[in-house]
Amino acid sequence: MSLNLRMVVHLLGWVLCIESLFLCFPLVASVIFWEPVIWVYVVVALGCLVVGFALTRCKPKRTDFYAPEGFVTVALSWILLGMTGSIPFVLTGEIPFYIDALFETVSGFTTTGATILTDVETLSKASLLWRSTTHWVGGMGVLVFVLAIIPLVGGHSIYLLRAESPGPSVSKFGPHMKDTAITLYKIYMAMTLIQMVLLLLGRVSLFDALNIAMSTAGTGGFGLYNTSIAGYSVYVQVVVAIFMLLFGVNFNLYYALLCRRAKDVFKSEELRVYLALAAFATITIAINIVRQVGSVSEALNQAFFQVTSIMSTTGFSTADFNLWPDYSRTLLVILTIIGACAGSTAGGMKISRVILLVKHVRRELRFLNHPRSVEVIHFEGKRVQHEVSRSVNAFLIVYLMIFVCSMVLLSADHFDFVTNFTATATTLGNVGPGLNVVGPLGNFSGFQPFSKLVLIFDMLAGRLELFPMLLLFTPSTWRNR
Amino acid sequence: MSLNLRMVVHLLGWVLCIESLFLCFPLVASVIFWEPVIWVYVVVALGCLVVGFALTRCKPKRTDFYAPEGFVTVALSWILLGMTGSIPFVLTGEIPFYIDALFETVSGFTTTGATILTDVETLSKASLLWRSTTHWVGGMGVLVFVLAIIPLVGGHSIYLLRAESPGPSVSKFGPHMKDTAITLYKIYMAMTLIQMVLLLLGRVSLFDALNIAMSTAGTGGFGLYNTSIAGYSVYVQVVVAIFMLLFGVNFNLYYALLCRRAKDVFKSEELRVYLALAAFATITIAINIVRQVGSVSEALNQAFFQVTSIMSTTGFSTADFNLWPDYSRTLLVILTIIGACAGSTAGGMKISRVILLVKHVRRELRFLNHPRSVEVIHFEGKRVQHEVSRSVNAFLIVYLMIFVCSMVLLSADHFDFVTNFTATATTLGNVGPGLNVVGPLGNFSGFQPFSKLVLIFDMLAGRLELFPMLLLFTPSTWRNR
Repeated sequence: MSLNLRMVVHLLGWVLCIESLFLCFPLVASVIFWEPVIWVYVVVALGCLVVGFALTRCKPKRTDFYAPEGFVTVALSWILLGMTGSIPFVLTGEIPFYIDALFETVSGFTTTGATILTDVETLSKASLLWRSTTHWVGGMGVLVFVLAIIPLVGGHSIYLLRAESPGPSVSKFGPHMKDTAITLYKIYMAMTLIQMVLLLLGRVSLFDALNIAMSTAGTGGFGLYNTSIAGYSVYVQVVVAIFMLLFGVNFNLYYALLCRRAKDVFKSEELRVYLALAAFATITIAINIVRQVGSVSEALNQAFFQVTSIMSTTGFSTADFNLWPDYSRTLLVILTIIGACAGSTAGGMKISRVILLVKHVRRELRFLNHPRSVEVIHFEGKRVQHEVSRSVNAFLIVYLMIFVCSMVLLSADHFDFVTNFTATATTLGNVGPGLNVVGPLGNFSGFQPFSKLVLIFDMLAGRLELFPMLLLFTPSTWRNR
Repeated sequence: MSLNLRMVVHLLGWVLCIESLFLCFPLVASVIFWEPVIWVYVVVALGCLVVGFALTRCKPKRTDFYAPEGFVTVALSWILLGMTGSIPFVLTGEIPFYIDALFETVSGFTTTGATILTDVETLSKASLLWRSTTHWVGGMGVLVFVLAIIPLVGGHSIYLLRAESPGPSVSKFGPHMKDTAITLYKIYMAMTLIQMVLLLLGRVSLFDALNIAMSTAGTGGFGLYNTSIAGYSVYVQVVVAIFMLLFGVNFNLYYALLCRRAKDVFKSEELRVYLALAAFATITIAINIVRQVGSVSEALNQAFFQVTSIMSTTGFSTADFNLWPDYSRTLLVILTIIGACAGSTAGGMKISRVILLVKHVRRELRFLNHPRSVEVIHFEGKRVQHEVSRSVNAFLIVYLMIFVCSMVLLSADHFDFVTNFTATATTLGNVGPGLNVVGPLGNFSGFQPFSKLVLIFDMLAGRLELFPMLLLFTPSTWRNR
């Protein structure tokens, strides 16, 4: 039996339909602000709808849907989203070159927030909102959305969810997957709304508040101004920092709170490590920059914002940390790689993986001393299955392989080691800013088109947690079974 | 039952005795060249002998010797070698500060070859030879030597070998461990001698030839001149490059050749990947630097020398690759981390580990597609045991943990990201040179004493393949069993 391609095409059709729905956001904005780019968003939204609807007509003959189909659907969906979502930027002429537009759109959907624009402020309001919308859609995952609204595909739609955002959280989806998907989206919307209201209370305009809230929710990082969030009041900065921290928490914990299982939240190992790491980084960086910044409170404010921004892989900035002392720079690069909690909208390796890796080492050290000892690893109060350990190890290896290949390919470009290193780390972790050329005040426009394609691959691989993108190029995915 | 400390002390005594034996090398040199440092080497050699002999009198009451004893003995032996071996440098006044001398000596024994000296050429001949001797002793492992000459400790001396140089090669030591240890040392001496003769044929002085051969054999990298090997003829450079490559090959393959099992050599996966990687790196780097260097032959010569030097983790140089284009620099950093074959005198992660990691990923990708498939990993024609896979994964994680901690600690010093990154990589891989401040023409003298201690730890951890140094600080090593 070969891969169920008709089913894949059918689902891709649904993805396009949903994209056309979200394209209505910038469409409405262009109407309200009466911008000449209206026609672009009308044409693209209609185009996506028509093509998408046509593809959904491709009815699958079989209902079988297993892991390979899941990975292929997810990988192709995200590539398709990037390829179609970038058309408006080219048609409006705001980003004339297609690879640049593709970079910007993939950066949006993968919630990276890395930009090739040197002057964001010249964009139309519609395009600004489209950038934020891609963050908001990408943060939660498009296929979760598909699952929430369309009838289940056979009985195996779990493979779709697994492929889009693997990790410990998926196990809890269980039989009521659809309900859970809807609940998670509700929590997501509610939190976005609360942040918007808090921003409005800080005298931020409705347009700005909507964009910032969507960008924060998806832990994206596209800003409306060249100085990102630096131009807003301290109140706004603190609100954004706190919400970045919140969106980096596993959504299952919010679900547990709703079900009045607060004990689960306090017992979460991952949450504790996440918060402890954020506190440690904030305090030590504040100490490190206090002389440069001038006052303790400002140092704490800047450190807290940058730490939550990088850890949650958002990438907003209120300071040019590229100019900070080397300790702060180094720590931020490490946090870029680690990321936030599994089951959140954030990217990176995820705290839970790091915890499991450390536990793996601890067990190995005991094993070396006492070769006859048999020890199991526990995490969040449960015994960790052998498959999970293996998969976490494989993740680390694949991560390093992609990192190394990306570094080598980028080194053929004309930038320095630190720029290439942090560009790779920040795209693979879906963060946004790096150091040197790609620092908080820099951008990715200087890379050659080939390097941009490498970074686009990194962003997609990072958002889909590596495996789907690799499996797309693995023969056994396409082979008959 | 607690750790068999008396046995550990007894073995440490032997290590000191053997060190005093090797201190006779510089002693003889100082007599021949009639240098005023004679008395220093007489005093230190005698001191080591007396203290060592006294410690060997500490007869163990029990003969039990298991993994924890093995790790502790090995870790403490290497620390002791560094601490005593550095005394001559301080007494001669050539390296007045103890931490600097310790850095230089540990760099020698661990075959790193990183130096804190800004002008090597001012050293006495005796001290130059002592530096090369530490490389030669360190390359093969001191405890292998101990095993080759002293009666076996109980029946468990395998734990000593495992702790000093783990990896696939140890399994082949089998019951005739002592014989094998002696054979390996014979091969080592023979190859060193052959290289010396070839260097003498290239009109290199006897003193230079001896030093270069010992330094190459241990894949160390301490040179006699500030320009390392750049001042010698092309013939000498090619001889050194070829021998660096040869000393990076698993010694079991030479053993197999001696036993006329040439088929084993050609079938070795690790050897093939090692040579293929060296060829790939040489050719692409030559292409990358040809415009800068001027001629194709000179580009190939420089690329081949630097590639074999870095891959074999020796660290000699004939060109300042710090000034090369970014592709070459990046590739050399990656080769620094990978290293050469297991069971050789080289450091780094080792090619065999990288192969196993890649195979691990391939299996995982197939598993993701076909969750019911059960697949075993094969390497060098044999099935890889579950424990080996686990240990390789743990190695990778520990490597990254030490790398990250080292980077953070070094970042408190005043150097840039690339200097700190490559200083960590080059000490952990026992290579020698890095980029920027610690480039081929630079040195480690600018680091603060605390940073030097961090790098000393990295060198020791790298040479002992991470675990012994970690286990020294693990409570379960010292706890009753």
